[in-house]
Amino acid sequence: MVVLCGAGRPPGLAPVERAADVRYVPADRLAAELPGADVLFVWDFASRAVPAAWPAPDAVPGWVHIASAGVDSLAFDALRNGDTVLTNSRGVFDAAIAEYVLGLVLAYAKDLPATLDAQRRRDWRHRETETIAGRSALVVGTGPIGRAIARLLSAAGLRVCGVGRSARRDDPDLGTVHAAADLLGVLPDADFVVLAAPLTAQTTGMIDAAALATMRPGARLINVGRSALVRTDDLVAALRSGAIAGAALDVFDTEPLPADSALWTLPGLLVSPHMAGDFVGSLEELARLFVANFDRWRQGQPLQNVVDKHLGYVPSRATEPAGAGRRAGEAAADGPGQEGLPTWTRT
Amino acid sequence: MVVLCGAGRPPGLAPVERAADVRYVPADRLAAELPGADVLFVWDFASRAVPAAWPAPDAVPGWVHIASAGVDSLAFDALRNGDTVLTNSRGVFDAAIAEYVLGLVLAYAKDLPATLDAQRRRDWRHRETETIAGRSALVVGTGPIGRAIARLLSAAGLRVCGVGRSARRDDPDLGTVHAAADLLGVLPDADFVVLAAPLTAQTTGMIDAAALATMRPGARLINVGRSALVRTDDLVAALRSGAIAGAALDVFDTEPLPADSALWTLPGLLVSPHMAGDFVGSLEELARLFVANFDRWRQGQPLQNVVDKHLGYVPSRATEPAGAGRRAGEAAADGPGQEGLPTWTRT
Repeated sequence: MVVLCGAGRPPGLAPVERAADVRYVPADRLAAELPGADVLFVWDFASRAVPAAWPAPDAVPGWVHIASAGVDSLAFDALRNGDTVLTNSRGVFDAAIAEYVLGLVLAYAKDLPATLDAQRRRDWRHRETETIAGRSALVVGTGPIGRAIARLLSAAGLRVCGVGRSARRDDPDLGTVHAAADLLGVLPDADFVVLAAPLTAQTTGMIDAAALATMRPGARLINVGRSALVRTDDLVAALRSGAIAGAALDVFDTEPLPADSALWTLPGLLVSPHMAGDFVGSLEELARLFVANFDRWRQGQPLQNVVDKHLGYVPSRATEPAGAGRRAGEAAADGPGQEGLPTWTRT
Repeated sequence: MVVLCGAGRPPGLAPVERAADVRYVPADRLAAELPGADVLFVWDFASRAVPAAWPAPDAVPGWVHIASAGVDSLAFDALRNGDTVLTNSRGVFDAAIAEYVLGLVLAYAKDLPATLDAQRRRDWRHRETETIAGRSALVVGTGPIGRAIARLLSAAGLRVCGVGRSARRDDPDLGTVHAAADLLGVLPDADFVVLAAPLTAQTTGMIDAAALATMRPGARLINVGRSALVRTDDLVAALRSGAIAGAALDVFDTEPLPADSALWTLPGLLVSPHMAGDFVGSLEELARLFVANFDRWRQGQPLQNVVDKHLGYVPSRATEPAGAGRRAGEAAADGPGQEGLPTWTRT
């Protein structure tokens, strides 16, 4: 078994080490170590090293697991079309990301960045601020992360609706879900647009100049999904022209964001370093999820969080037995009668 | 009728002007204009001018209304012991303050100030942050503002309990309410301590060195009540020593906070300029509340939001007919079987 590591190793893998020959491998040794391994655990989820290091067909691993929800870094044909089973870390980040998004919504509504700026200047600058009760939020992405966001924003008083692959009403978490094809028709109603969709061919660039032009001048865009959901140049233009009031980005075309990027100082733009889902204890939880799946794999049981490699995410219900692959309290997250819907695509 | 004004006048008082001789008076003319007036509307709620301008007993107004929830600026014996009816603006600020407090809780949990600082330095600084689900919040003050805070923090996943004049269990908003006399015993359990109590002889200085010493090293104090609930020197010492992790203050001993105050730069301290409750539209709502009460007064009906001048707040239920004095959706806020409990004391 090969564990692709960056700076650190996953904690708590002793049970796996007792059962398997585990090699912790940096990116530059992956091509040498991967051929013939049974399992690849992509711990360094930000690594782009796997496609180039992928072995010949007779030497591919039977199972690849990634310590992230998004699998876009593993979207290459040899893996997609082969027999290797791909699993992800769906479920680990849902609650933390939902809280992060609510924190951003409130930071915008209560003008917290300006308050912190004023404090730095020792400037007593009283303002009236926005309330969030009754404001509208559009959550793009109906996987468990989008659902957790929708539930928390609803609990905090916002009116929430969703965007998914297909339209439906009375979704237990999202209420009305609009089809992605109707995005331009529903964007004008949103005070907050939250992107939590997987990055696929269908979702790439979905927030472009045309989409931004339909948004409210007072609206804010929050992207906790993948950078390429948004055409960055179009967003920069929209913020500069005042077409929208703000954007909070946790994901970027290049990470870390280069120091000379114009995004750092763009008006209304909040930059966070791809950390929305990364709570204290998340590494341990990611490792535990892998260890549990490793036990299933050894015992020949079905794995949790099997990704549909052609869709690019774990479909809900359609391919999972009811209740399988879910953590405590998560059962409601996938709702009844849901077809294969995007899971979130991150960290 | 006299309206004590600062920089601006209340909007929408035309109906009152048609029915009464309305004089808009700055603080320095109050002593000259107030004697013989039937009604005093304290629109400039921050003014301290009323006690010194209070007329002789035969010339006092029959009714004083203040555009704030807190009435501590009107706590003087001649008003307290006379026949003048005092009403406040209970209810206007509840939801906005609750949202503001949740925003502060999330700003601390998600380390948002450090993220904004890093952005200013163009510094990509990934961190793991806290989750709020299951964290504990202690809400001091069981009036409508404390209740709105408790409901919203609970909805966002925190475990909430309260502190009030007397202990009780199963409060519909606060769950377990501890008696203020037991404060030192319950502070150690709280990750977030939120002050939303009225400033009275009983609550002044309740957060002192002894109280701060019992708090968790990781705890944050949020004060949206009145500054004198906290002994500022003790708080400064607690932040400097790391006895607690942070404090967010919306209220100060002197407002505006002087530019040379040490509070502006204290580690872990967030300064906001007494604006937690001040949402866009709040001035209009404050004026509407007064106009509605003015209609009642003209018609000889009981006024809304009558303050118990000896308690220093509007008691719930005990002195109000059921349902009176509440705004839509507020009925549940006061809960069943509640004795006279502190309302909040602010703006």
